[in-house]
Amino acid sequence: MVQNPYNIDLDRTPANYQPLTPLSFLERAASVFPQHIAIVHGALRRNYAEFYARSRRLASALAQHGIGRGDTVSALLPNTPAMLECHYGIPMSGAVLHSINTRLDAAIIAFQLDHAMSKLVIVDGEFMPLLQAALTLAKVTPRVIQSDDPEFDDPRNPVVANDYEAFLASGDPEFDWLMPEDEWDAISINYTSGTTGDPKGVVSHHRGAYLLAQGNALTTSMSKHAVYLWTLPMFHCNGWCFPWTMSVIVGTHVCLRQVRAEPIWNALADEGVTHLCGAPIVMSLLISAPDDVQRALDRTVQFFTAAAPPPEKLLADMQQAGFNVTHLYGLTETYGPAVVNDWHKSWSDLPPARQATLKARQGVRYLPLEGLDVLDPDTMRSVPRDGVTLGEVMFRGNVVMKGYFRNPEATKKAFAGGWFHSGDLGVVHPDGYIQLKDRSKDIIISGGENISSIEVEEALYRHPAVAVAAVVAMPHEKWGETPCAFVELAPRQAADAETLRNWCRQHLAPYKVPGRFVFAAIPRTSTGKIQKFVLREQAQDLAG
Amino acid sequence: MVQNPYNIDLDRTPANYQPLTPLSFLERAASVFPQHIAIVHGALRRNYAEFYARSRRLASALAQHGIGRGDTVSALLPNTPAMLECHYGIPMSGAVLHSINTRLDAAIIAFQLDHAMSKLVIVDGEFMPLLQAALTLAKVTPRVIQSDDPEFDDPRNPVVANDYEAFLASGDPEFDWLMPEDEWDAISINYTSGTTGDPKGVVSHHRGAYLLAQGNALTTSMSKHAVYLWTLPMFHCNGWCFPWTMSVIVGTHVCLRQVRAEPIWNALADEGVTHLCGAPIVMSLLISAPDDVQRALDRTVQFFTAAAPPPEKLLADMQQAGFNVTHLYGLTETYGPAVVNDWHKSWSDLPPARQATLKARQGVRYLPLEGLDVLDPDTMRSVPRDGVTLGEVMFRGNVVMKGYFRNPEATKKAFAGGWFHSGDLGVVHPDGYIQLKDRSKDIIISGGENISSIEVEEALYRHPAVAVAAVVAMPHEKWGETPCAFVELAPRQAADAETLRNWCRQHLAPYKVPGRFVFAAIPRTSTGKIQKFVLREQAQDLAG
Repeated sequence: MVQNPYNIDLDRTPANYQPLTPLSFLERAASVFPQHIAIVHGALRRNYAEFYARSRRLASALAQHGIGRGDTVSALLPNTPAMLECHYGIPMSGAVLHSINTRLDAAIIAFQLDHAMSKLVIVDGEFMPLLQAALTLAKVTPRVIQSDDPEFDDPRNPVVANDYEAFLASGDPEFDWLMPEDEWDAISINYTSGTTGDPKGVVSHHRGAYLLAQGNALTTSMSKHAVYLWTLPMFHCNGWCFPWTMSVIVGTHVCLRQVRAEPIWNALADEGVTHLCGAPIVMSLLISAPDDVQRALDRTVQFFTAAAPPPEKLLADMQQAGFNVTHLYGLTETYGPAVVNDWHKSWSDLPPARQATLKARQGVRYLPLEGLDVLDPDTMRSVPRDGVTLGEVMFRGNVVMKGYFRNPEATKKAFAGGWFHSGDLGVVHPDGYIQLKDRSKDIIISGGENISSIEVEEALYRHPAVAVAAVVAMPHEKWGETPCAFVELAPRQAADAETLRNWCRQHLAPYKVPGRFVFAAIPRTSTGKIQKFVLREQAQDLAG
Repeated sequence: MVQNPYNIDLDRTPANYQPLTPLSFLERAASVFPQHIAIVHGALRRNYAEFYARSRRLASALAQHGIGRGDTVSALLPNTPAMLECHYGIPMSGAVLHSINTRLDAAIIAFQLDHAMSKLVIVDGEFMPLLQAALTLAKVTPRVIQSDDPEFDDPRNPVVANDYEAFLASGDPEFDWLMPEDEWDAISINYTSGTTGDPKGVVSHHRGAYLLAQGNALTTSMSKHAVYLWTLPMFHCNGWCFPWTMSVIVGTHVCLRQVRAEPIWNALADEGVTHLCGAPIVMSLLISAPDDVQRALDRTVQFFTAAAPPPEKLLADMQQAGFNVTHLYGLTETYGPAVVNDWHKSWSDLPPARQATLKARQGVRYLPLEGLDVLDPDTMRSVPRDGVTLGEVMFRGNVVMKGYFRNPEATKKAFAGGWFHSGDLGVVHPDGYIQLKDRSKDIIISGGENISSIEVEEALYRHPAVAVAAVVAMPHEKWGETPCAFVELAPRQAADAETLRNWCRQHLAPYKVPGRFVFAAIPRTSTGKIQKFVLREQAQDLAG
């Protein structure tokens, strides 16, 4: 066999090959537009030179404390400037960013810290008590650095750890930060909610983060100096990679500690926001705000929504209020959005109900995702494009995770047959757009947060009066969905809704506590399996 | 040494790793927007489904004729739909696209065909005589496929080879085209003009083409369904990768056989063109067109220019006519533009002359280029950012070529010290923007002082009587070298050597004033580049 002549004497060299990493986007933004405002947070304005220098200080301070390649650094932070700095400074030290959902309970946080072998935690003052509770349960003893945010004015938590600003001050703003040795090196770990068994640590790499960050800008038509409002929590899948996307187009981040209507409307009107992301709950919040809170917008704002299809009425209201809503879909395992409801201009001429139906579909592959399909998981064959035949949604390509941390069994299972198995069930329409129909795991999505029904059931099962528990989603006006618990009591035991609600409050994060408890016989199949679809119908009726 | 835990059991698999290739952009565009118009050429309209199917047919037909990985397929074509198909169909067969400049002479084309070991040539009917002349000189005997373009209405060349449409018809529109085995695989070869010695074959790979294609869209803020007019020849560095960029944003190509004012203005007005590229000569063509040819534009059109800094007057005229001009810079070795004059909004408030001065600078690195600097080639140290100290412009990163084909010596020399040596001399301004001052071989060294021929030419261009100026070194008994200026006068203008000498004395340091002024037609290459080596010979004789 003759060797391909185009492979002779044409090897990779330092001149023509570098690992892809989103960290280089910030270096470029700071060198070309040092004075451009990178971060807005309340009255605070920080330009790209400062953002980059502070990120390098963070990397340097971490390195001085012995943090390096392969170490995990955790962040328990709301959408503050410190959280943005963590997205650059932590990987610039060679370490891996572990963002923790601030709404989790102490036990799960302890599990994550242990599993990720966390060496250091950067925590916002508000969540210091939560972290302290987690640390009493954890085996690891990470160093703790507390970030105090001037926009958080509840002084109940005086500094009890090393101060973040002092930590940064000890670092070198000219630090020669570490490029990844390979673009396949890990940049972050994010734990999934763990519907079955323990949470799984999804490892992302620099290559995928680089590609999805650019894919976001291209998909959302973000042009130079776009302004992004942080309604999406950055602890969700690295804010879907938007902390890195904004450096691609040298844009401005508008931070937000809390998702409330008034600061959102003010940021939209006063800061020139062009793009934001969020679950439908954020749209409801915007639309249902009192008239004196809502503001007139002088531009169409791009709103990207995921988690649940946007309802027709909400879409109409959003359009009226000056937003263009795009529906995205993805998982932590795909770096966030890897599917987009790529809109056809001609669809805008259809009746609103038809438009909402089309917009409810999850859509087509993101540019940096090479493969998206709905397959029969047994045969690994594509389902027909009939909009009816159910299969499992599967992904393949460069924005699929590196794998699950310290869990080769789960990784192997997830990648069986050369595709990432999402666990989501869907169909393919004749035009190739996919639509989710159900979740093979019974996830409840409340205010954009995934709630595992199994976790809630397990908490209920621990109460002595509970014989059988089954939890399903019940529609909820504000949160989209809320857990509804069906309970069969054990013989000679008594408990009422109030008792179980209190029990759950002690054992679960508040948002996971069922909104309703139903005491009744639970329907089963002949083989004894609980018929959750029957319960879901009942919950639907109860909510109605 | 403990192994990095993030590298254990987290290997590449088919589920999470695919070679980056711009070919996948077309597959996506065709699957999501099959009916969107991909190509406009005169009255012809072809949608993405057709564009993709025809590209697959081409790949299939090539495969049927034994073309595969590592083979070279040449294209001698103007900016027609066939040329766009070659950018996808040829690499889809596993082969390497070799685009030939249609303005070259037969001997150089013969050299390229031999050096690239071309297996097959796709040629436009207009250039069949040129190819035939080249083939009489070449050692290789590639198969010839002739593409006849209905927009070319000179019937002097009846089909004398295999017909392109018949060739395509023999291919399978559902052909299972070849992904690259590795993203480092070659996608194209482009020969540099070779002002010194033989032309060199610049090999590009799929990874770089993918990244630059996306970089173009991000840098030029191209949004979904942008419309691109083909004033830039596609045989120049693969049309700077725009054949692939347009599939990223599912845009429309407007083809153009010839760069003439009327069809350009018509396309701008009638086809909704949003972006085009070209040398300053294209701007002059647009601006100097008669009033009845110029059309009113209902949008700002983005014009990207390279090759020479756009003069102030031209910039003002272009702005007046509805264009926004951006200055780019790059080489065939960097896939085309790798440097952009990234404009700061605040600069638009400066006086026009100052704006032109700022816009004349080449600028900063493109997003997918990791490193750009001006270095002393002896010490490989950065020059100070003083806007004065001359050094060699160097590049490093993923959009630097794979290397020169069958020329390991030249490749090694070009990549010495871990940087690609451009051969261009430049300075770095305090804000980090680079500016070219000369080709290293065009520098004039007089009494130990470096004189930039460009600087002297710019001074001459500011004189109203000067239409074209070219300055080269002339041997000088005392100073070693002195500048010698060749000048073409503008129509109905007069000036003599004394006038221009006085003019230069007012605008240049005394040692930079040319020792001799020659009024004559200036020799150019087929691509319109001034042939300085011819002028240098003339200057030598004049001094002799």
